[in-house]
Amino acid sequence: MRYKLVVAYLGTPFCGWQRQSGRPTVQGELEDALQRVTRLEAISVVGAGRTDAGVHARGQVAHLDLPHSVPPDALLRALNGHLPTEIRVRSLRRVGSEFHARRSARAKLYVYRVRWRPPSLPWLGLRSASLPRPADPAAMSRALALLGGRRDMASFTVSDPAQGPTVRELLRVWSVTRRHGIDLCFLGRGFLRYQVRRMVGAVLEVGWQRRSEADFRRLLEAPRTGQRIATAPAQGLTLERVYYRPAGDELLATD
Amino acid sequence: MRYKLVVAYLGTPFCGWQRQSGRPTVQGELEDALQRVTRLEAISVVGAGRTDAGVHARGQVAHLDLPHSVPPDALLRALNGHLPTEIRVRSLRRVGSEFHARRSARAKLYVYRVRWRPPSLPWLGLRSASLPRPADPAAMSRALALLGGRRDMASFTVSDPAQGPTVRELLRVWSVTRRHGIDLCFLGRGFLRYQVRRMVGAVLEVGWQRRSEADFRRLLEAPRTGQRIATAPAQGLTLERVYYRPAGDELLATD
Repeated sequence: MRYKLVVAYLGTPFCGWQRQSGRPTVQGELEDALQRVTRLEAISVVGAGRTDAGVHARGQVAHLDLPHSVPPDALLRALNGHLPTEIRVRSLRRVGSEFHARRSARAKLYVYRVRWRPPSLPWLGLRSASLPRPADPAAMSRALALLGGRRDMASFTVSDPAQGPTVRELLRVWSVTRRHGIDLCFLGRGFLRYQVRRMVGAVLEVGWQRRSEADFRRLLEAPRTGQRIATAPAQGLTLERVYYRPAGDELLATD
Repeated sequence: MRYKLVVAYLGTPFCGWQRQSGRPTVQGELEDALQRVTRLEAISVVGAGRTDAGVHARGQVAHLDLPHSVPPDALLRALNGHLPTEIRVRSLRRVGSEFHARRSARAKLYVYRVRWRPPSLPWLGLRSASLPRPADPAAMSRALALLGGRRDMASFTVSDPAQGPTVRELLRVWSVTRRHGIDLCFLGRGFLRYQVRRMVGAVLEVGWQRRSEADFRRLLEAPRTGQRIATAPAQGLTLERVYYRPAGDELLATD
């Protein structure tokens, strides 16, 4: 019996999604809570994406298999009762065995929230990164606009022989100006390790006039790993949503 | 040269206000940041109140003495640049040497935020406590209304021979119904250790029908320490504001 979960979490207290022995992770907390609730020996939770330490999620998706059917509402309540309040299961429903949280995903939406300065009330800035110095939003928007499409994104990841091909498709890239900053939004088929934070880092470098727009273009035109790009801090990044068929295709058609 | 600071902090990552060796505290972070900024050997920061581990502040007040005059705006910016983002100095100004953050305080406003259930987005509940079971808000309000005035509050603190007299004056106690819960508000001349969280704990016990209203009255009519009262979790409590003359008197006159 396969179940699909939509999970929100504040990344701050966790060492990322992926289970690590002796360290608090989102997957680890979910699997431990499931074990306490179901009294089953070992239950694996498969996530749509492995968010890094400190990265948040509003709509991470995961699946899990149970040997018997359970009422989804009761399981959802019991899980939330056993999870730390920084992790919330927002929905839980039975799905067919063909559903796979990672392999069935059609697209993911990440939003990186930049604030021009730290908020004077600290609880307002937990899911955003405050800039150490002013940046030019117009230059940032121009750089951002270059990122869309299907390309080799090697410049925006780290060297890792296990990673495989580095071509990825960004379906839509846009920004939303906020009162205190700017949200940088990335809707893509899939993302390489650190890709969003390094894209944001390079865009910020352009906004700070530390990197020319010509140099930014070169990151895309002559892709290679090992580029010197600042990785933007994890605390600004939120995995907002994971899209699946059929709803996914409808939503993707809006651009 | 004496300076007055208004400080906001998210209590979650700190072991309370008061400096403790080897543990992160708000006073410790402020003093360390001041030392780095001023390059002076030892600077003490005196707070209006010692908030416990996990308790938040929107308007904690503190004072400090420097051997020379500094531009307040520059000092504020430099301090915020050296502080973790969970602590923000909201204002900083020169005051007369007669000002003392604790002794000059006329009143403090604490708000305890209760949510009926945990929010499905975890970042919405960081400064509130979610109840494990439903409580009756009308019964809570009736109990709350009994707490006002000048009384021996021994029932709401812990035994501590060093504490001295346990009479305290609550100028105003009220509640505000919110969409997802209720805010319990306490404006008082001063508070004993754990007083707010134990008052809230007893009020919640009434709301859960675990304590009769008659028994609640007895906590006030026959005050003694060592009463079995649940201390409400720190994460729901915020020190909202500290009042001083002359603005304090005007504000206190509004009830």
